[in-house]
Amino acid sequence: MIKVPAWLRKRLSRRVVLGGGLAAASGAAIGMTGALAQSGHASHAGTVGAEAKLASAHSGPHGAMITVGEVDEARNGFDPTKLLTDWDRGTVSQLPDGRTLRTFEITAEDKEIEIAPGIMFLAWTYNGRVPGPSLRATEGERLRIVFKNYGSHPHSMHFHGIHAARMDGVPGAGLVAPGEEFVYEFDALPFGCHLYHCHALPLKRHIHKGMYGAFVIDPDPTRHPEYEAVARSRLLGTAENAEWQELVMVMNAFDTNFDGKNEVYAVNTVAHAYAKKPIKILRDKPVRVYLINVIEFDPINSFHLHANFFEYFNQGTTLTPTLKTVDLITQCQAERGILEFHFTEHEPGLYMFHPHQSEFTELGWVGMFDVVETVS
Amino acid sequence: MIKVPAWLRKRLSRRVVLGGGLAAASGAAIGMTGALAQSGHASHAGTVGAEAKLASAHSGPHGAMITVGEVDEARNGFDPTKLLTDWDRGTVSQLPDGRTLRTFEITAEDKEIEIAPGIMFLAWTYNGRVPGPSLRATEGERLRIVFKNYGSHPHSMHFHGIHAARMDGVPGAGLVAPGEEFVYEFDALPFGCHLYHCHALPLKRHIHKGMYGAFVIDPDPTRHPEYEAVARSRLLGTAENAEWQELVMVMNAFDTNFDGKNEVYAVNTVAHAYAKKPIKILRDKPVRVYLINVIEFDPINSFHLHANFFEYFNQGTTLTPTLKTVDLITQCQAERGILEFHFTEHEPGLYMFHPHQSEFTELGWVGMFDVVETVS
Amino acid sequence: MIKVPAWLRKRLSRRVVLGGGLAAASGAAIGMTGALAQSGHASHAGTVGAEAKLASAHSGPHGAMITVGEVDEARNGFDPTKLLTDWDRGTVSQLPDGRTLRTFEITAEDKEIEIAPGIMFLAWTYNGRVPGPSLRATEGERLRIVFKNYGSHPHSMHFHGIHAARMDGVPGAGLVAPGEEFVYEFDALPFGCHLYHCHALPLKRHIHKGMYGAFVIDPDPTRHPEYEAVARSRLLGTAENAEWQELVMVMNAFDTNFDGKNEVYAVNTVAHAYAKKPIKILRDKPVRVYLINVIEFDPINSFHLHANFFEYFNQGTTLTPTLKTVDLITQCQAERGILEFHFTEHEPGLYMFHPHQSEFTELGWVGMFDVVETVS
Repeated sequence: MIKVPAWLRKRLSRRVVLGGGLAAASGAAIGMTGALAQSGHASHAGTVGAEAKLASAHSGPHGAMITVGEVDEARNGFDPTKLLTDWDRGTVSQLPDGRTLRTFEITAEDKEIEIAPGIMFLAWTYNGRVPGPSLRATEGERLRIVFKNYGSHPHSMHFHGIHAARMDGVPGAGLVAPGEEFVYEFDALPFGCHLYHCHALPLKRHIHKGMYGAFVIDPDPTRHPEYEAVARSRLLGTAENAEWQELVMVMNAFDTNFDGKNEVYAVNTVAHAYAKKPIKILRDKPVRVYLINVIEFDPINSFHLHANFFEYFNQGTTLTPTLKTVDLITQCQAERGILEFHFTEHEPGLYMFHPHQSEFTELGWVGMFDVVETVS
Repeated sequence: MIKVPAWLRKRLSRRVVLGGGLAAASGAAIGMTGALAQSGHASHAGTVGAEAKLASAHSGPHGAMITVGEVDEARNGFDPTKLLTDWDRGTVSQLPDGRTLRTFEITAEDKEIEIAPGIMFLAWTYNGRVPGPSLRATEGERLRIVFKNYGSHPHSMHFHGIHAARMDGVPGAGLVAPGEEFVYEFDALPFGCHLYHCHALPLKRHIHKGMYGAFVIDPDPTRHPEYEAVARSRLLGTAENAEWQELVMVMNAFDTNFDGKNEVYAVNTVAHAYAKKPIKILRDKPVRVYLINVIEFDPINSFHLHANFFEYFNQGTTLTPTLKTVDLITQCQAERGILEFHFTEHEPGLYMFHPHQSEFTELGWVGMFDVVETVS
Repeated sequence: MIKVPAWLRKRLSRRVVLGGGLAAASGAAIGMTGALAQSGHASHAGTVGAEAKLASAHSGPHGAMITVGEVDEARNGFDPTKLLTDWDRGTVSQLPDGRTLRTFEITAEDKEIEIAPGIMFLAWTYNGRVPGPSLRATEGERLRIVFKNYGSHPHSMHFHGIHAARMDGVPGAGLVAPGEEFVYEFDALPFGCHLYHCHALPLKRHIHKGMYGAFVIDPDPTRHPEYEAVARSRLLGTAENAEWQELVMVMNAFDTNFDGKNEVYAVNTVAHAYAKKPIKILRDKPVRVYLINVIEFDPINSFHLHANFFEYFNQGTTLTPTLKTVDLITQCQAERGILEFHFTEHEPGLYMFHPHQSEFTELGWVGMFDVVETVS
């Protein structure tokens, strides 16, 4: 792997980084043209000089606008396809009062990860992943999170959820120096699609470096017996055969050259991962996406589903949808929600999803659902 | 018409473009002062040099901040006032199964349009208009859109609506090379206020160049017999005399100097069109606005109605309002919705509307409703 | 007070202004490091040169990231803590038809205010405050606002509310030249959490200079007898002992160097005011925040409550919440709403609130609730 030297990286414009410069530098073939393709007219684009040459091997006027080459998933230690359904449910025991105690073990670690073919990022991680593990519990359980900081900076876990001030994961309350540990403890409340992230200072850098993850609390079925039945029949008109296909999608982005702007956008870190390897969806079963936005620097992110509509549950804290029949929602950083939809009346095929900020899409945040007939 | 040479255009700052530079260059009198007026204090504004001279004929300290001169509507081939109510309902025939088949004919064409007095924009258009034709159908009809690409680049029509993957208007599914054609076909679902746009790559450029338009699907009255009655009585307290005044407003913007920022903002393309020629509204009838945001480069747009409040139907896909009694809503690109309001209890007069991003307003996106007594 | 000369201010980068430069210049100790701390790696931050020295007295790698020193509240003429609950209810009389006439007296004045220790801002104010007075009325009353312009520029009061076009506070309808006055008059409608602001041109500058304030219309209890009882029992499960703790929070920001970007962010003007002096909240009583966003230049702002969730009433115009059980909402400029929450089941302690745009938080917009046991 050839890394781009810092002096060169600084000379490459924001858009060119993913569009050709780094891909070329890494020895990969060139399949995106970024700023070049963007103009649509060389005569309008002004002097493109050296960058134009980087794209000279490109076949068409615009190209597929997708990264070429493969990210080394083994070295990263995580596979984007597996991240979609990889829940960390911790370990369970029973408290003297009969309640469930659920314990998670989390470490902070510095780690270099590959976010697009040939583009490395010096991340700060939870459990060696970006995003961190997708923690999942049930409403009302007692949660204990044992957090050990093996990283080079002070870190914390700030949970979006209900807890005491001393468990808040901010400076003075659960901020952990390198080599130290802290145990966060609180009840799993309220049910919903939440997140956790580092709240050490400077906040912007600690979040952006990769310290965030999903935190999903399922409604307690004994408190909400109608939940699954209602959700299923609402969506499909029948409660039968309605096994949910659940997916976690953390919308994130990376500032690779320290200019306070993102050059690479993604869901679950790896640019274009789900465009190159579409997400298989069974046509006759409903889909539930836990969607969380954590991008820094940009004020909003969004999610547009092609050729279909979904129900949206803002923060996942209600049993009835916040928005019905929409194909696009927006989220600022730390906003999140649940999307429910199905393709039962669609033809099988490839259905795109992406934000409706074209730039994010062009820089890596785009994927496909591969809707297939039931295997059985 | 004197065009501003490229070298000069590049030297003009973003704000000055609309504020004086181009207006002066086009021979028009100067009525906006942009960056100059913006500072409010010459001593704070730093060196304004040449630009100051461009505004020297200006009478007041701030001016009316509105373009002076007229856009040549005949050459453009569209009149902003007429665009508000100009629906393309296609042609209708009957399918063997008794259903209605509605057919639209759309062409893509390159065309230079005038977006503010003296400011030309090399647009890519649908049917020679920006925005493209406002397509209107009824829920459940079969739609057939015959799309011919007479433009210089590959183009498509991607509909926000329900359809098969192969009708999606993305590369590999309905992308049309210059000189070719494609027929999109699908059912009109779901009812609502939608849009279509080109989904060729690079996406950012194809949308921004002007390739978008409204796509409205009315609720099928046989499926929703209560619809109009409910809507009317909800808003006015009576279902009588409640003829809707319907308006299509596509919020768009233009990057005239290829810097990845917009210099001109508008509803329906022509800056200040509805400020100079207010939209007549009969005081005793309700108003329904189909509002669609398509701007590139800026993360959000918004709509603020002065001195009054409206009901808002996010994406128009519900029969009950998403928000009641608001005077401001936001939309990211491709978000859209229906606004319903009335002025029956207001005095006649001029009522302003604009986004609450002051910059957009100053750069052209502002209009007036001229509320008048019933003519009859 | 030593002011930073203009030539120096221009050389300081956006982030450094609050991060050390001006604090140092004002003679205060340095407690924030802005751009320096932000990078987290001196080697990545590029040449920081002189700015690095400004922060050399700083103890830790990141510091507390909070301003050091005190703002001179006596000179400012307003105390951020008092602003939270300082309502202007005007003077009340009775109209011949028995209705209540509520009269407010407002003046526009130029005034230099201190927005962070040592950082002065040449504001345009209503009644010498930024934000202007929090006007409060009851639904259906007749309101009369006597506005006198003692400032150096034309100004107006544009109310978000229902009124006649001639009372709109825009050029041609209630714009007031220096030395003149105007009386706005209209009914207090609709109930909700609204705002007023100057609508003179250029709009961007007049709003940003400080000309805005809260305008709250309470629901008429005779029209909505269920209002308080419902609100109380919904939130606390009981209507007893439910005295609301009401707070006005106007999210604002300041462009101190005329670069079209904000360098200082706050709630109610003074950066970090509620971080240094937390807002006391009685644990057993509900809290109602009237939240209004008026920032210029940035597309959105937001409010995140730590460790707790709230109900949100968009624009305050409904008696049932727009969003239930959320810990984060966004607002573009002039959006506003009511937050209702309580800490009755929380431990006493310090609970943070801030926007989830990390940059705004780092540049001053962050506060704490100090939740305490009932004093009685």
